[in-house]
Amino acid sequence: MKQSHLFTKTRKHAPSDEVSKNAQLLIRAGFIHKEMAGVYAFLPLGLRVIEKIKSIVREEMNAIGGQEIEMTVLQDSGLWEKTDRWSDKKVDNWFKTKLSSGAELGLGFTHEEPVTNMLLDIISSYRDLPLFVYQFQSKFRNELRAKSGLMRGREFLMKDMYSFSRTEEEFELFYEKCADAYVKVFEKVGLGDITFRTKADGGSFTKKFTDEFQTLSEAGEDTIYLDRTKKLAINKEVFSEEAVISEGLNPDTIEEVKAIEVGNIFPLETKFSEGLNLKFTDENGESRFPIMGSYGIGISRLMAVVAEIMSDEAGLVWPESIAPFKVHLIQVGDDEVVKAEAEKIYSSLLKSKVEVLFDDRDISPGQKFGDSDLIGIPNRAVVSTRSLEAGGVEVKGRTSDKSVIISVEEFINTYA
Amino acid sequence: MKQSHLFTKTRKHAPSDEVSKNAQLLIRAGFIHKEMAGVYAFLPLGLRVIEKIKSIVREEMNAIGGQEIEMTVLQDSGLWEKTDRWSDKKVDNWFKTKLSSGAELGLGFTHEEPVTNMLLDIISSYRDLPLFVYQFQSKFRNELRAKSGLMRGREFLMKDMYSFSRTEEEFELFYEKCADAYVKVFEKVGLGDITFRTKADGGSFTKKFTDEFQTLSEAGEDTIYLDRTKKLAINKEVFSEEAVISEGLNPDTIEEVKAIEVGNIFPLETKFSEGLNLKFTDENGESRFPIMGSYGIGISRLMAVVAEIMSDEAGLVWPESIAPFKVHLIQVGDDEVVKAEAEKIYSSLLKSKVEVLFDDRDISPGQKFGDSDLIGIPNRAVVSTRSLEAGGVEVKGRTSDKSVIISVEEFINTYA
Repeated sequence: MKQSHLFTKTRKHAPSDEVSKNAQLLIRAGFIHKEMAGVYAFLPLGLRVIEKIKSIVREEMNAIGGQEIEMTVLQDSGLWEKTDRWSDKKVDNWFKTKLSSGAELGLGFTHEEPVTNMLLDIISSYRDLPLFVYQFQSKFRNELRAKSGLMRGREFLMKDMYSFSRTEEEFELFYEKCADAYVKVFEKVGLGDITFRTKADGGSFTKKFTDEFQTLSEAGEDTIYLDRTKKLAINKEVFSEEAVISEGLNPDTIEEVKAIEVGNIFPLETKFSEGLNLKFTDENGESRFPIMGSYGIGISRLMAVVAEIMSDEAGLVWPESIAPFKVHLIQVGDDEVVKAEAEKIYSSLLKSKVEVLFDDRDISPGQKFGDSDLIGIPNRAVVSTRSLEAGGVEVKGRTSDKSVIISVEEFINTYA
Repeated sequence: MKQSHLFTKTRKHAPSDEVSKNAQLLIRAGFIHKEMAGVYAFLPLGLRVIEKIKSIVREEMNAIGGQEIEMTVLQDSGLWEKTDRWSDKKVDNWFKTKLSSGAELGLGFTHEEPVTNMLLDIISSYRDLPLFVYQFQSKFRNELRAKSGLMRGREFLMKDMYSFSRTEEEFELFYEKCADAYVKVFEKVGLGDITFRTKADGGSFTKKFTDEFQTLSEAGEDTIYLDRTKKLAINKEVFSEEAVISEGLNPDTIEEVKAIEVGNIFPLETKFSEGLNLKFTDENGESRFPIMGSYGIGISRLMAVVAEIMSDEAGLVWPESIAPFKVHLIQVGDDEVVKAEAEKIYSSLLKSKVEVLFDDRDISPGQKFGDSDLIGIPNRAVVSTRSLEAGGVEVKGRTSDKSVIISVEEFINTYA
């Protein structure tokens, strides 16, 4: 894409009411627009990052047998009354609305009820199970305060998966498969080294621990006790000597650290299948409730966490896997030979299907370099009179201090 | 995908409260699930169709210079008060909700206000224009009745594009470009022959006609006067002798027909740029309001229209461009040789990246053929003892009466 065509602009300052680092940077670099506190629109650069994160997650969810669907935002109150989650006393962050007829509706903050209800038409026998479905969807949570940018939104994009199993063993098998898939996702988005499986409170659903995936961050809302050698942690809310022993952590090397939850996997037992009366007939002809689990990854939150953690003073620093573009090609100066050569390189990259942002704008080199650092594309390639005289293109990694000159041919071959 | 893995099932009957043909068929074939009147979830087959329609639309929108973004569902009342569209007296199909603080929010039924507001940060000079942005997003309309299935939903998926131009001429140039792009979209989704550009009422925005794209359908809510030779129509709401003359239609060959609106392109003049005070400085240093247009295509409605119009008594009939799969491979009988051969063919098709649904289930051939007709994949390929003895695979188009036997090799080469 030519930067002269890209309609967004970088800006020196984020809106004064924006206090979170992730949203400040993403707004300044033109990835998102703030509609109101906790509600952000995705601009072209931001949408590209979101789509890449979705692709990574989708690939891993499909690999473990997940089937993609898309449920609805509008929620029928009747379904949620069956599981006692409609009352604002039970769930305090509903957004509610009304049909013209006066009937109350909710905006989905999660989807256990509708997915379970949907399967009433589909599941009857043990042959129909196990079953794993997932979706990418906007969720709505009426947070009292929303000061963490895209880390905790009122409207945000989530991947939520739901599993339906016949036995406890079958459930646990998938639960661990999903945990492995989550590890792969966080590795692929570039957070593998600082993201840890963490035991946490099971809430009202299960007496067992649940598992969170926590990424180390000073901006995180959680405190966890981490054993780096075991790559395991325990959330402060359930931390105890007993928990340390049961999880096999080494009490001598545990660190107390701040972290942000980027995913969770959650045993639901039969709370929702019982609540909505979803049954199947097992091999012995007996009627039983499927054992359920739910598995979430905050897609927009992941973008925020990467923005918050991997950025430096100059701006964003995207891992190649989720960067909006792979290469930032920058034409410096208005020399006609340089312009023609830059255009030729841009065409060659496009032909080789390299994702490239081409800064062809008539502004100063300093502005171009500043924008490039702020936007954070991993590979910068400068075409200038000097680079051409030295033999080609001046290439530099986003966080590297050194650039190298390589020939145009080698440059294209490297990225094609 | 193996059909034994696909979690949805076909069903003989749609829910008794579902009166529309499109939703009845899509529910029976397992493409959608009805959450409530006018609110439908997309199941794996339905989501595949939706994604294909989106890809076709995206390609054409990008080709005319559109930049993809994604705005938000939650809407700040303040923005809409500026253009006098917040009051329920002015817009009678708002869904409204409230923040915990008590502030009123709306759920977006369209996005002129937020897109115009977003550009206040970005547009200042004539050099920033023209500008075309679009998104795919769920829209919410609080319809009093919702009896047309996915043709008129309360929550539905739409592509909406907005143009910002410097002059009337520049606006008209893009408007016609977009009209041409729409013609291509409707051709590609298989509705080209029965979809016509139609002059309609400009509402409160413009004294000129607007343009709708209307697809001929007995289930349509609109009546249009069509000149097939000119490929142009006039909506009944603005039909007059004067209109026939001004649009150059032949009064002798005009037909009155029922139709459904699948897209619209709409001059907005400066209503929203004035309302939200979006200005630019022109070449002469004068401050002016950009001239806007909006351009919609109902994505879920398009799926419904194809389901409604192109189906037959046996079920859905998808054009290849938007079918959930290209080939429905059906293994008939439980002969081990047949099973092995069918598996081999399935693997070959996957290797060649052919989108194939493989019916490997242990059910009767009659059930398989019935399901295949109901689901409506364009090419059916049967592997049976008989077909193998006759030399290969028995291939039949969804609406064809005749099948032909072709060799396995030829079959794979045809679809790869």
